[in-house]
Amino acid sequence: MVETNKIETLRWVGGFDGHLVMIDQTQLPGELIELECRDIDTVFEAIQMLRVRGAPAIGIAGAYGVLIGIQSDFDSVSALKIQLARTCDYLAESRPTAVNLFWALNRMRRTPDEFPTDDVIELKNALLKTAVEIHEEDRQMCHAIGQHGADLLANVDSFLTHCNAGGLATAEYGTALSVFFTCHDRGRKIKVYVDETRPLLQGARLTTWELMQHGIDTTLICDSMAAQVMREGRIEAIVTGADRIARNGDAANKIGTYSLAVLARHHGIPLYIAAPSSTFDLSLPDGDGIPIEERRAEEITHGFGRPTAPEGVHVYNPAFDVTPSDYIEAIITERGVIHEVNEDNVLSVLGIC
Amino acid sequence: MVETNKIETLRWVGGFDGHLVMIDQTQLPGELIELECRDIDTVFEAIQMLRVRGAPAIGIAGAYGVLIGIQSDFDSVSALKIQLARTCDYLAESRPTAVNLFWALNRMRRTPDEFPTDDVIELKNALLKTAVEIHEEDRQMCHAIGQHGADLLANVDSFLTHCNAGGLATAEYGTALSVFFTCHDRGRKIKVYVDETRPLLQGARLTTWELMQHGIDTTLICDSMAAQVMREGRIEAIVTGADRIARNGDAANKIGTYSLAVLARHHGIPLYIAAPSSTFDLSLPDGDGIPIEERRAEEITHGFGRPTAPEGVHVYNPAFDVTPSDYIEAIITERGVIHEVNEDNVLSVLGIC
Repeated sequence: MVETNKIETLRWVGGFDGHLVMIDQTQLPGELIELECRDIDTVFEAIQMLRVRGAPAIGIAGAYGVLIGIQSDFDSVSALKIQLARTCDYLAESRPTAVNLFWALNRMRRTPDEFPTDDVIELKNALLKTAVEIHEEDRQMCHAIGQHGADLLANVDSFLTHCNAGGLATAEYGTALSVFFTCHDRGRKIKVYVDETRPLLQGARLTTWELMQHGIDTTLICDSMAAQVMREGRIEAIVTGADRIARNGDAANKIGTYSLAVLARHHGIPLYIAAPSSTFDLSLPDGDGIPIEERRAEEITHGFGRPTAPEGVHVYNPAFDVTPSDYIEAIITERGVIHEVNEDNVLSVLGIC
Repeated sequence: MVETNKIETLRWVGGFDGHLVMIDQTQLPGELIELECRDIDTVFEAIQMLRVRGAPAIGIAGAYGVLIGIQSDFDSVSALKIQLARTCDYLAESRPTAVNLFWALNRMRRTPDEFPTDDVIELKNALLKTAVEIHEEDRQMCHAIGQHGADLLANVDSFLTHCNAGGLATAEYGTALSVFFTCHDRGRKIKVYVDETRPLLQGARLTTWELMQHGIDTTLICDSMAAQVMREGRIEAIVTGADRIARNGDAANKIGTYSLAVLARHHGIPLYIAAPSSTFDLSLPDGDGIPIEERRAEEITHGFGRPTAPEGVHVYNPAFDVTPSDYIEAIITERGVIHEVNEDNVLSVLGIC
């Protein structure tokens, strides 16, 4: 058993010429393996193959990935800038739905404008500083979400969550799981049901593991059992993360979240989204504009080392769905809680209007 | 690829001293392996471990299993009757929710009263005749359900189903799948979405296989994707089987069916249950009295040859849920269609009032 406080989802080692170390989450909970990324293709593959996953963690990995992509010697800042743009373009292709990735890459992209210099080394150091800031801000953001969520849900003892919006998905503590960890840190005895989250089983593999590491009472169910568990009165609130949230609060998250939202409404159970402000894509008026990534058939047909469906079967494998804002009781952000989820309240809590 | 018309879920070989051959459904779709049952413990294990599954097929296996349990030499009919009762009691323990099993065992149990004789061989032959009748009636029942269902759903082209209510679950053609097979036999081009059906993946492993064998356009999804598929307008009707139906029409079926029922209602999609009259348990006024079998944690945590969850995690694994009758658009039985599902209509279509 690994101690929780020793787990670092992502870690940058060295200066601007350093390398990135990440937990290979595809190997959990069986093995805790750290992957060293010393070239850009390894970072790309790690994001694409979900070795690192969860919107904020992907953003952090992307930012550090940029540093790895610009480690050649450049004879001018303009040559470095060209390579910086190329690296950002390349990494943006690794996960088409992850708005935090684009957000982090854009912060890296903008760094030369914010730190104008003719010195290549100075610019590389500025880029390292931006990446480290993204990482550190994420850590603080997670804790702020946990505090807001634990305040909001002070009287809730039994929860359901979906997929993994935990420390592994972020720098530390996570988003949805940060709420549970913070409740637990405050000495409350809570119980969390976890959807296994097919096809990639992030709930079974990662969320249960993180919750158990913290000593939280954790019960694993299949996704299809959530309705029954709700009906039996075992769930007081649902908390999930989000991958991308539109201006009106419509939220894209792991496939199955919309299903939970409909089931929750039917059973009179509130559904909360816990997500940082960076998850909001204010250029989208609503969820209709969020592209839904379709993933490979093999994730469903060969997910467990052996085929579990006939060869050649058609498969539909959308990775996400969009939960309309009126199914969401509130969105818990690091800047505060968005009650009555709508555009005005989104902009107000994010501090934009 | 095996030709459909060669597949026999269950086959009795020989006279009353013969043996039972069944397809080991836990090996599908990878391998088509036939299991020979020559002792009662093999039959018990096959039912318990879901090598044979689906309410009607379990009933048939149970009936033939009884024959295997009474193959000793008996010096009197009363000694045979004692062993008959013992065998029925034993087999009834193999699956606590399967009402068809109890129904088939009770038919075997009653046979000595229906064919009073002092001759051990004569009684054994009468018991064989009862088992063969149960098998043959099931074959006819499946085809009748298919005809009623295809008539009822003459204008529906795109379906969703859950678990496996197909030929493998019955003597032939199945219940829910019989509707699809019959539509197809009538020359209609239909499309069927199939929930993979965690934890044991009967949808992915068995239903897709059967539908593809018949040349039906088949698309596999994860259970958590059903809501999204409904929302995208891909589904016109849902058809599932049932394991036990109460007097008022409340229907127990594979876990996840209740979830589909709530989601279907939300999306304005009708849900149909296709099930033979033997599935009705008229002693139960409603679904509250249906016991829900809880199965082993390992089905969820070790379902695919390697652990997919941390050791020691709590698991809740209900095998069934109950869909209240008012979520069911109609129940398709071999005796006709029960529209407006309630006690009066159940009894009327079953021909009991």
